[in-house]
Amino acid sequence: MRKYIAEAIGTFVLVFFGVGSAVLAGGGMGLESPINITGISLAFGISVVAMAYSIGQISGAHLNPAVSMGALVAGRINMADFIGYALFQTLGAIIAAGVIYTLATNSAGGYDVAANGMGQNGWGAGYGGEFFMISAFLFEVIATAVFLVVILGVTSGNGSPMMAGLVIGLTLTMIHLVGITITGTSVNPARSVGPALFVGGTALAQLWVFIVAPLIGGAIGGLLHRARITGSDD
Amino acid sequence: MRKYIAEAIGTFVLVFFGVGSAVLAGGGMGLESPINITGISLAFGISVVAMAYSIGQISGAHLNPAVSMGALVAGRINMADFIGYALFQTLGAIIAAGVIYTLATNSAGGYDVAANGMGQNGWGAGYGGEFFMISAFLFEVIATAVFLVVILGVTSGNGSPMMAGLVIGLTLTMIHLVGITITGTSVNPARSVGPALFVGGTALAQLWVFIVAPLIGGAIGGLLHRARITGSDD
Amino acid sequence: MRKYIAEAIGTFVLVFFGVGSAVLAGGGMGLESPINITGISLAFGISVVAMAYSIGQISGAHLNPAVSMGALVAGRINMADFIGYALFQTLGAIIAAGVIYTLATNSAGGYDVAANGMGQNGWGAGYGGEFFMISAFLFEVIATAVFLVVILGVTSGNGSPMMAGLVIGLTLTMIHLVGITITGTSVNPARSVGPALFVGGTALAQLWVFIVAPLIGGAIGGLLHRARITGSDD
Amino acid sequence: MRKYIAEAIGTFVLVFFGVGSAVLAGGGMGLESPINITGISLAFGISVVAMAYSIGQISGAHLNPAVSMGALVAGRINMADFIGYALFQTLGAIIAAGVIYTLATNSAGGYDVAANGMGQNGWGAGYGGEFFMISAFLFEVIATAVFLVVILGVTSGNGSPMMAGLVIGLTLTMIHLVGITITGTSVNPARSVGPALFVGGTALAQLWVFIVAPLIGGAIGGLLHRARITGSDD
Repeated sequence: MRKYIAEAIGTFVLVFFGVGSAVLAGGGMGLESPINITGISLAFGISVVAMAYSIGQISGAHLNPAVSMGALVAGRINMADFIGYALFQTLGAIIAAGVIYTLATNSAGGYDVAANGMGQNGWGAGYGGEFFMISAFLFEVIATAVFLVVILGVTSGNGSPMMAGLVIGLTLTMIHLVGITITGTSVNPARSVGPALFVGGTALAQLWVFIVAPLIGGAIGGLLHRARITGSDD
Repeated sequence: MRKYIAEAIGTFVLVFFGVGSAVLAGGGMGLESPINITGISLAFGISVVAMAYSIGQISGAHLNPAVSMGALVAGRINMADFIGYALFQTLGAIIAAGVIYTLATNSAGGYDVAANGMGQNGWGAGYGGEFFMISAFLFEVIATAVFLVVILGVTSGNGSPMMAGLVIGLTLTMIHLVGITITGTSVNPARSVGPALFVGGTALAQLWVFIVAPLIGGAIGGLLHRARITGSDD
Repeated sequence: MRKYIAEAIGTFVLVFFGVGSAVLAGGGMGLESPINITGISLAFGISVVAMAYSIGQISGAHLNPAVSMGALVAGRINMADFIGYALFQTLGAIIAAGVIYTLATNSAGGYDVAANGMGQNGWGAGYGGEFFMISAFLFEVIATAVFLVVILGVTSGNGSPMMAGLVIGLTLTMIHLVGITITGTSVNPARSVGPALFVGGTALAQLWVFIVAPLIGGAIGGLLHRARITGSDD
Repeated sequence: MRKYIAEAIGTFVLVFFGVGSAVLAGGGMGLESPINITGISLAFGISVVAMAYSIGQISGAHLNPAVSMGALVAGRINMADFIGYALFQTLGAIIAAGVIYTLATNSAGGYDVAANGMGQNGWGAGYGGEFFMISAFLFEVIATAVFLVVILGVTSGNGSPMMAGLVIGLTLTMIHLVGITITGTSVNPARSVGPALFVGGTALAQLWVFIVAPLIGGAIGGLLHRARITGSDD
């Protein structure tokens, strides 16, 4: 149970600071110089660094059902833990989205969720570079697979355990640098569920992509590693 | 005594470069392209990295009464050291604010403290995203608690001592990426006292929040670690 | 064969995230706040960090024929491996450019390759700071030589193997910070071939510079290291 | 002699990429989105990271007469090496400034040194935030002293040798984040001499400050360390 609570806390931190940077320091608060793509990408990446070196000792700091899926496919965790991890990760993400919402609305300008969103993932008309669904889906699969190749590689027996948290966090920053304008970057079903529940509408209708695509990508990453194509040893 | 002096020097560095980046390279100097949120967040975070690997050998480089509070609650320092650390940290912060003020006013445009501030923390009308006090307080408590969870975790027996300074500094960068528009990001009573003394008015009236909330957050982080919810071992 | 496949995958990741950040998050998608030089430079650099600590265990993660050239000159790989590496690196880069093209064109605005390019390298009228060819060539030679001095130094017997991937990736970020406005920064023939094939015209006509200059620079770096001018030991 | 050549090469890299990012990717080339303070600060910092882990094995990678001064005061090098290091560092910096000048002028717009400078250090009317000389001098002394405290601390017997290059480079980034608008940030006489020779006029007239102040700051840092105020052990 303790490791599940750690995953909930860790995913809370990832969503609170990652999504929070986009919502609370982004364009929605009417700021003159809102945070930009580089800043948001760093916030997401550093949240993983921070959690990897603290609660990582307890749970491994997956913070992400797609990461747990890759770990399951690679044979690092069992199905019961996959389910427990995914549930508590999602719980932490929902709580984080609620706290972000509470902070945002308790401001002089209030916060217009309909106009400014809640850092939800998406695609199509009015979203970022207005990519089609096929692009969104493809990006999420590729990015999550690469994410898992890195995670499973750096934490493997021949990897660099001490550097792992830093490398994994930087990789998430890289993924956000490219993906924010495509899908807002999910690669993490839990991170997508939280904001979608508070935004509803299109975000909820598109949510399935950010559950399915990252899980497929995570499984592909796990398979690549397990087949020794990208992994060397566990 | 030597470790108290180290804390004063270290907190001087944190405030001089962190707050200094906002004041001396920020909008107040009439620059065409002032530094942005990402740059200021990096300056704060790197100041911790720099001090952790240098004066950290002497004092642990807390640089922050809320960090010392978390260390006290976690049983890492005693009450006498908490008081000594907090006093000398605050002293270093005040000196840093004074040097920043001296530099800023010795410029062709002078420096209009009333109009541009001194990098003080705050909330409400005319400050950042104009958040209400409840949002400011809540953010400071959560962010400081997360900060302590990371600090106590990465420096614990099962942590990564060699990576600790880097991870802690990056975590402070992450916290600033989100919090600059909410409260200017304190999570550090000493950092808040320095500029407030030079600005006075609203900054002084709001100062109590940036003393109370970070200390509460620091204590919560210490308790979470001590209760083994986020910490694994010392 | 396995290490060649690793190089193809790794170079795919470098080009997909590095070039992809410029194309998919850059000005071509009609975004209000496209990614800037710092963000693109970080994406390139982190792609090397990510691959160094994962597939690096299999192939060394050269991801770049100029790096393999330096390794050849320094006596770390043989000619057969140089050829195999270079071919598979180029293959990975071409596939990455194809995927970027697929994603970009599957968007509401389509993607005007003629107007916005595909992150190709170049120089002269209408390209970045409109440098002459001599400047482009000179920069590519110097930057690649410095890149190899760092790579061969940090991975040598007296180097810091655990830090190597991070240091090498950051070095590539530094090179991009300066070079994006000069040549778009190649220092990597494979990275240049991919986009040029999809853009054609000037990009193809100028491509030889981004094959020849980085290979010369890589060889110079290898010689400097081998002659013990910058290297200390293998 | 070999270590002197290493210092010349290393300082060439620091100036070529640090100053080069400001000149070649900055406002002077007529770019729409020139590099900003954060990008320039990263380029300076990473140049130190890159050299520390490569030529650092040969010469220690001071790259800076003020660093060598601090090392001299702290008893780490002798006077003969201080002079040799300083001379070759300055030589490397001058060559780098020459190469930057060559690249910049070989462009369609030429390069107007009188209007856009060469990344020289300075203060007063028309320079950055238009600070007075006293602010420029004070900042350079403080920043260099802090730089040396970090360098001597992290490389000491109780320090973290493996992390040293990264920590020192990040510290230089932090110093630039604050100082670019004050003095352009020297903390390094060699870095200041190079551009000043190509700009002449005010830059040459103000050059003495960027030789004297960093050397004083470096000596102060050395004394603080030697007196065990900031240093713990060698």
